[in-house]
Amino acid sequence: MGVIHRYKGDFDWEGVAQESYPPERNMKGVTVRRLIGPAEAAPNYSLRYFEVEAGGWSCLEQHAHDHGVMVMRGQGSVQLGDEHFKIAFGDVIYIPGDQLHQLRNTGDEPFGFLCVIPALE
Amino acid sequence: MGVIHRYKGDFDWEGVAQESYPPERNMKGVTVRRLIGPAEAAPNYSLRYFEVEAGGWSCLEQHAHDHGVMVMRGQGSVQLGDEHFKIAFGDVIYIPGDQLHQLRNTGDEPFGFLCVIPALE
Repeated sequence: MGVIHRYKGDFDWEGVAQESYPPERNMKGVTVRRLIGPAEAAPNYSLRYFEVEAGGWSCLEQHAHDHGVMVMRGQGSVQLGDEHFKIAFGDVIYIPGDQLHQLRNTGDEPFGFLCVIPALE
Repeated sequence: MGVIHRYKGDFDWEGVAQESYPPERNMKGVTVRRLIGPAEAAPNYSLRYFEVEAGGWSCLEQHAHDHGVMVMRGQGSVQLGDEHFKIAFGDVIYIPGDQLHQLRNTGDEPFGFLCVIPALE
């Protein structure tokens, strides 16, 4: 049977916790809500909603798996290799595997985006 | 290198065509924009934006691959097996493989949603 996570407003969903990252991860002010993934027994991919507080940023990282991103709120930038691009609501970014990348909040409000990844081992 | 599809407003994106389906498909008033997939050389999953016009509906179908859905605009319903659920902005629906399903526009405005699928053969 399927799963429905009802939207509660302000980018919060029923049955989905807001999770922080441990301080040893090299990022600032990032939380994640896991919308579809192992908890829904999804075997192929995960869909997550990330939120970055004003002044925050995700890890600068490079890894084998790819990311599919859509911006949902706020103003930010994405680094792809050594290039930086401004991004805002609705922009779609495909980050292939092994591409160096980082996302930053460049505004005064929360910067939120959806991110798809393949199911990882 | 990554790919950015800039949002142009009204659920339209640079570099992404709006596609209709052939009339023999048993659906009504459905278009698709393929945001991430083979054209972006994404090997693992596809992200599509579907829009259903007022009075329209997607195929009632059942297949091996799963769907990850998030509603982006309008009012609709999703059938999961023999149950029907109202859905609106932000609601997240996980439709597992082999689950009978259909989406319908139940409002007067376009009903739009994101849909993730695994990469298919």
